[in-house]
Amino acid sequence: MPELGLPHAVMTSISAPRPATAVLLAAGLGTRMKSSRPKAMQSLGGRPMLAHLLANAAEVFDRLVVVIGPDMEEVAELAAPYPVVVQQERLGTAHAALQAEAWFGDGDVAVLYADNPLISAETLNRLLEERRKPDVGLALLAMRPADPARYGRVVAQNGNVERIVEWADATPEERAIDLCNAGVLCADAVDFRRWLHNVRNDNAKGEYYLTDVVDLAVADSVQVRAVEAAEDELRGVNSRAELAQAEAALQTRLRNKAMENGVTLVAPETVFLSADTQIEADVLIEPNVFFGPGVTVQSGAVIRAFSHLEGCEVQANAIVGPYARIREGSTIGASARVGNFVELKATTLGEGSKANHLTYLGNAEIGSHTNIGAGTITCNYDGVFKHTTTIGEKAFIGSDSILVAPVTIGDNALVAAGSVITKNVPDEALAFGRAQQVNKAEMGRLFKERLQAKKENG
Amino acid sequence: MPELGLPHAVMTSISAPRPATAVLLAAGLGTRMKSSRPKAMQSLGGRPMLAHLLANAAEVFDRLVVVIGPDMEEVAELAAPYPVVVQQERLGTAHAALQAEAWFGDGDVAVLYADNPLISAETLNRLLEERRKPDVGLALLAMRPADPARYGRVVAQNGNVERIVEWADATPEERAIDLCNAGVLCADAVDFRRWLHNVRNDNAKGEYYLTDVVDLAVADSVQVRAVEAAEDELRGVNSRAELAQAEAALQTRLRNKAMENGVTLVAPETVFLSADTQIEADVLIEPNVFFGPGVTVQSGAVIRAFSHLEGCEVQANAIVGPYARIREGSTIGASARVGNFVELKATTLGEGSKANHLTYLGNAEIGSHTNIGAGTITCNYDGVFKHTTTIGEKAFIGSDSILVAPVTIGDNALVAAGSVITKNVPDEALAFGRAQQVNKAEMGRLFKERLQAKKENG
Amino acid sequence: MPELGLPHAVMTSISAPRPATAVLLAAGLGTRMKSSRPKAMQSLGGRPMLAHLLANAAEVFDRLVVVIGPDMEEVAELAAPYPVVVQQERLGTAHAALQAEAWFGDGDVAVLYADNPLISAETLNRLLEERRKPDVGLALLAMRPADPARYGRVVAQNGNVERIVEWADATPEERAIDLCNAGVLCADAVDFRRWLHNVRNDNAKGEYYLTDVVDLAVADSVQVRAVEAAEDELRGVNSRAELAQAEAALQTRLRNKAMENGVTLVAPETVFLSADTQIEADVLIEPNVFFGPGVTVQSGAVIRAFSHLEGCEVQANAIVGPYARIREGSTIGASARVGNFVELKATTLGEGSKANHLTYLGNAEIGSHTNIGAGTITCNYDGVFKHTTTIGEKAFIGSDSILVAPVTIGDNALVAAGSVITKNVPDEALAFGRAQQVNKAEMGRLFKERLQAKKENG
Repeated sequence: MPELGLPHAVMTSISAPRPATAVLLAAGLGTRMKSSRPKAMQSLGGRPMLAHLLANAAEVFDRLVVVIGPDMEEVAELAAPYPVVVQQERLGTAHAALQAEAWFGDGDVAVLYADNPLISAETLNRLLEERRKPDVGLALLAMRPADPARYGRVVAQNGNVERIVEWADATPEERAIDLCNAGVLCADAVDFRRWLHNVRNDNAKGEYYLTDVVDLAVADSVQVRAVEAAEDELRGVNSRAELAQAEAALQTRLRNKAMENGVTLVAPETVFLSADTQIEADVLIEPNVFFGPGVTVQSGAVIRAFSHLEGCEVQANAIVGPYARIREGSTIGASARVGNFVELKATTLGEGSKANHLTYLGNAEIGSHTNIGAGTITCNYDGVFKHTTTIGEKAFIGSDSILVAPVTIGDNALVAAGSVITKNVPDEALAFGRAQQVNKAEMGRLFKERLQAKKENG
Repeated sequence: MPELGLPHAVMTSISAPRPATAVLLAAGLGTRMKSSRPKAMQSLGGRPMLAHLLANAAEVFDRLVVVIGPDMEEVAELAAPYPVVVQQERLGTAHAALQAEAWFGDGDVAVLYADNPLISAETLNRLLEERRKPDVGLALLAMRPADPARYGRVVAQNGNVERIVEWADATPEERAIDLCNAGVLCADAVDFRRWLHNVRNDNAKGEYYLTDVVDLAVADSVQVRAVEAAEDELRGVNSRAELAQAEAALQTRLRNKAMENGVTLVAPETVFLSADTQIEADVLIEPNVFFGPGVTVQSGAVIRAFSHLEGCEVQANAIVGPYARIREGSTIGASARVGNFVELKATTLGEGSKANHLTYLGNAEIGSHTNIGAGTITCNYDGVFKHTTTIGEKAFIGSDSILVAPVTIGDNALVAAGSVITKNVPDEALAFGRAQQVNKAEMGRLFKERLQAKKENG
Repeated sequence: MPELGLPHAVMTSISAPRPATAVLLAAGLGTRMKSSRPKAMQSLGGRPMLAHLLANAAEVFDRLVVVIGPDMEEVAELAAPYPVVVQQERLGTAHAALQAEAWFGDGDVAVLYADNPLISAETLNRLLEERRKPDVGLALLAMRPADPARYGRVVAQNGNVERIVEWADATPEERAIDLCNAGVLCADAVDFRRWLHNVRNDNAKGEYYLTDVVDLAVADSVQVRAVEAAEDELRGVNSRAELAQAEAALQTRLRNKAMENGVTLVAPETVFLSADTQIEADVLIEPNVFFGPGVTVQSGAVIRAFSHLEGCEVQANAIVGPYARIREGSTIGASARVGNFVELKATTLGEGSKANHLTYLGNAEIGSHTNIGAGTITCNYDGVFKHTTTIGEKAFIGSDSILVAPVTIGDNALVAAGSVITKNVPDEALAFGRAQQVNKAEMGRLFKERLQAKKENG
C-alpha cells in the first residue's frame, strides 16, 4: 500500500473482488485442559473444535491455512486439504500468524483461533465487510460478556478503536468498559504482514502478541473498527469447564433451531444434537435422546426416551425407542418400529416392519411388513469377516432366533422361536431348529432340594 | 339484564347458585408451530394441551363447550363428551367465542384458550368468584411476567380495570406497566353475548378481538376487575419453544409436589412425570427416570436410573431398574425386582419374584418368589393372536429360556437354561429342551486359521 | 476456666496441642421429609448425609460423638466405631448437645448437624483455628445466602459477634443484615459445658436452643467470632427439595473437580458422580452417565451415553457403552470394549476383549482378546449357589450362547452360536450344542393362513 503512495481506502476500492484468507491458529497444547491431545482436537458437538472453525471459515474465506505445533499430524490430517504450516517454537500469537505469511496472498487476511470455534460464518462475514469499508484498515471482533472479568478492554471513541488495554494494565475507568477484545483481527495482507513484522517481544513473557497489531495500525493512522458479536460465539475454550460451556452454547443453538423448524422437544435440555442433525417438522423427541453425527429424521417420526442414534435415517412416521440404538448405515423405513434394547448396525428395516425387543441386527436387509421376534440375533461376524443377512417381506422371525450369516430368509417365511438358522429359508417355508421339550416329574423339586441340602451341609 | 331494569349487581345476588359455562377456544392451527396438527393437540406432560384445560375447567364449570376449526375431528374426539361448535372462518377470538353463543345458558360464561393450558382450577375458581362479587360485571386474568415484552398492558385504578392497551398502541408510561393481559374473560352470559355482538372489526387485520369486550364493559359502566395469577399458569403456547417452556413449568410443579409428599428425587430436573403419576412417601427415584401416564408407585420402592414406566403399578419395596421398562397393564409385586434391560407388558410379577436381566415378559402371570433367568423371553405373539404365559410360585426359569404361549409352568417347577418350552410343565417338574453339547478337539483353532487364510488370500 | 482465675486467652495458649471433639447431632426425625427414616440417613451422592459429615469431621477432629434419637439403631450402626449417645426426649439442640457432655474431654468442642452435611474439612479447620486464636472464646459458622429469608442474622461490630437475632424478633435494620447464622459453634469444653447448662427454655416452644450459647458467651465477656463459608456448604437439609438442592451442590462440586483434572464431560449437568469416583485425565464422558460408589476410570477410556457404573475399574483406553451396566467387582481391561445392553457383575474382561451386545456376564473371568458374541449369557446362579465361568484368551463365543457355570472354556476355543455349554471346552476346541435346522416348504404360509382363518372365524 505505501508502495503506491495511495491512501489505503483508495487502493481497496479499486481492487474488488479481493481474495480473502483466514489463518487458523491451532498450535495450542491445551495445557490447562490437562490433555495429551492438541487443544484444536478437543470435541464439540461430536467433532473437533478445529472442524467447526474450518467449516464456518470456509463459507466466507477463499483460502484457509492452519498453523499447527510440532508433532501434530492429527491436526494436519483434520485440516486437509487445507495447507498447514508448523510453528516450531511457541513465541506468541503474532509469531504464529507470521508462520503463515507465505499464504497471505494479496487480499485480506483474518487471524482466527481453533479455541474460539463457534464464530458463525455470518459474524466472519461482517468482520470482512467492515474491513472492506472505505477508510477501514483493521477490523476486530469484540463482545460484551456477562462477566467481562480479565478480558482486554476495547477503548473506542465514536466507534473507532483507539487501543486495547490488557486488564492488568487498565485503570479503574478502563476496567469499567464492557466492550472486550476477542482477539480476532482482519486487515489487508500487505498491512498485516508489515505490522506483524513490527510486533516486539519486550514484555514479561518475551512473546509476540497479535494484539499489538492494533497499536501499530493506530500508529499508521488507519481506522480500526470493532465488530460486535455475541459472547457465545466469541468465548474462548481453554479448560474442560469452558469446553463444557461452549458445548452447552452450541446445544442451545441447535435445539432452538430444531424447535423453530417445527420439531417438538419435550425437554430440550436433555436432547443432544450434532451440528449436522436433520429433523423435519412434526417429529416428536422425548427426553434423553442422543444424536451422534449423520442422522436424518423424517416428518411424523417419534424418537422415544433414552434412544441413541448415529449415522442413520429414520423415515416418516417410524417409531424408535425407548432404548433403541441405531448405528451407522442403518435405515428405518416408513412406519417401521424399533423397540427397546434393540441395536441396528448397517441394517435396513423395511416399511412397516418391527423389531421391538432385545434384538441385534447387523448387516441385515429386511423387507417390508416383517416381524422380528424378541431376542433375535444376527450372527454377522465370524471373528474375521462380516456377512449379510437378507430377510424378505411379510416374514415372521420367531423369538430368540439366531440367524447365522450369510443367510437368506424368503418372503412370507416363518422361523420358529429359538431356532438357529444356518441355511437359507425359501419363500413361504417354515424353518425350525431346536430340541424337543422333555418334562421330568418331580425332578424340579428334587434338584432344588439337593441344592438346599448341599448348602445346609456347607 | 337490561330487560329487568335492575342494576347488574342486584340481579346476580338474587340468582345464586348460578350455572357457569366455559368456552374453550381450540380452533388454532398452530402455524408458528410449523405443525400439520391443530395446536390444541400438541402434547404437554404426555397429553394434549386441550386435555389439561378440559380437566381443570371441568373442576370449576358446570358446562364446557369447545370451539374448533373445520376438519378438526381429532379435536372433537378429544373434547367428547363435551359439545363442540365449528368456527368455519377465522375472524378473530370474539368471533370464535360467539360460535358457542347457543351454549352460554343463563349463568356466567368464561372464555379460555387451548394454547393457555396450565391455568389451575384454583385460578379459574378465583376468576369466577371475582366475577360474582357484587358490582363486578367482568373479570379477567392478568399476570406480571418476568419479561412483559409485547403483551397488552392492563390499565387499572384502585384495582378497577380502565382498559387494555395493546403494546403497539401504548405510550412509554403505559409500557412501563407490568400487569399484563392474559386474555381470559368471565362475565354474565347476557352481558357477554351483547358485548360480543358489539365487537367491531375495524382494525388492521379486520378481525373481531375478544379484548374489545373490556372497552364495551367499561362503556356499560360495569366494574371490570383483574385477577392475578402466576406467569407459569397464564403463559401462552404459540411455538415449539413456548411448548417446551410450558412443559418445563409443568414438570417443576409435578416434581415439587412429589418432593413435598416425601418422595426422594436425587436429581429432580432429570425425572419426567405425568400429570397423573402417583408416588408414595419414601420412594427413591434415581436420576433419569421417565413416567408415562398411569403409574402408581408404593412406599419403599426404588426406581433406579434410566427406567421407563407407563400404565403400571409398582408395589411396596420393589426395586425397578436400572434400565427397566414397565409397560401398560403390568404390576410389580411387593419386594419384587425387575433388573436391567427387562421389559414387562401386561404382566404381573408376584411378590418377591425376580426378573433381573435381558428379559421380555408379555401377557404373563407370574406367582410369588419365582426366579426368571437372564434372557428369558415369552413368545406371546404368533403374528395374529396374543397368548398368555402362566408361571406358578417358587418356580425357577433357567436363563435364555423361551416360553411359547399359551403355556403354563407349575409351582416349584424348574426349566433348564436354554430350553424352548412349548408344552405345560407340571408343578415340581423339571423341563428341558435343548441339544447336547459336543466338543471337537482343535476344530476351534482350525476354523479360525481357515478364516484367516481366506482373509489373507483375499 | 474460671477455676483457675485466668483469662481464657491465657489458658488456651499454654495447652496446645489441644484435643478437639465434634458432637454430631443426628437425632432428627425428618418430619418435613415425610419419611419413616431418620433424617441423618437420607442419601446424598449415594451415601447417608451423616456419612458425609463423619468423613469430613474425622479429618479435623480427634474425637467424634453422635447424638441419636431413640430407636435409631440404623444411625448408630452407621456411626460406628464412633460412640453414640441417645437423646431420649426432644428438648432442643442445646439439650441434644448436652447429652454428649461426658465425651467433651478437655480441649475444644464443636457442635455439628447431620442435616448440614456438606461442610468441608477446610471450613471445619478454619472454625477450629479461629476458636484457638488468643482472646476468642466462641467461634461460629456464618454465611451470606443468596436469599437470607428467615435465617437468624449475625449482629457483629468489627468482626466481633454481639448477638444472633432470630428473624421473627429482628428489626427492619437487623433484617437487612445479610450475614446469617449457620448454627455451628465451637468453644472450649469447659466453657461450652457451663454455657449449655445455663441455657433456659423460657420460650414459646419450651426448648433449649443452642443459639442461646452465643448470648451467654457474650455475657461472659469472651470474644465471639464468625467464620464465613459458602452457602452451598452450610445450607441445611430439612425437606426433600432441600435434599435435592444439596445433591445438586455436591454434584456441581464433583463435576468441576473432574473437569479441572482433565476429564471431558460433554454435558456435565447430566453426569452423576459419587464422592469417591476417580477419573483420570483424558477420559471422555458422554451425556447421561451414572457413577455409583467405588468406580475408577483410567486415562483414555471413553464412557458413552446412558452407562451405569458402580464398584468397578475401567482400565486405560477401554470403551464402555452406550447402555453398559458395569457392576460391583468388575474390571474392564485396557482397550477392552463393553457395548450396549451388556451387564457385567463380578467379572473381569481381559485386555482387548469385547462384549458388545445384549450380554450378561456374572462371576466370569475372561482372558485377553476374546470375543463374546451378542446375546451371550452366563448362568451363574442355580437358585442357591453362584458359580464361576472361566474363559481363556483369544476365544470366540458365538452369539446367543449359554454358559452354564461352573464351566471353563480354553484359549483359542470356539463356541458355536446358540450352544448351551455345560461341560468344559478344551483349548483350541470347537464346541456346539444345538439342534439341526429343518425347512418345511409352504408351511410358513399355511401356518399364517390358518391363524388368519381362525381370527376371521372369531
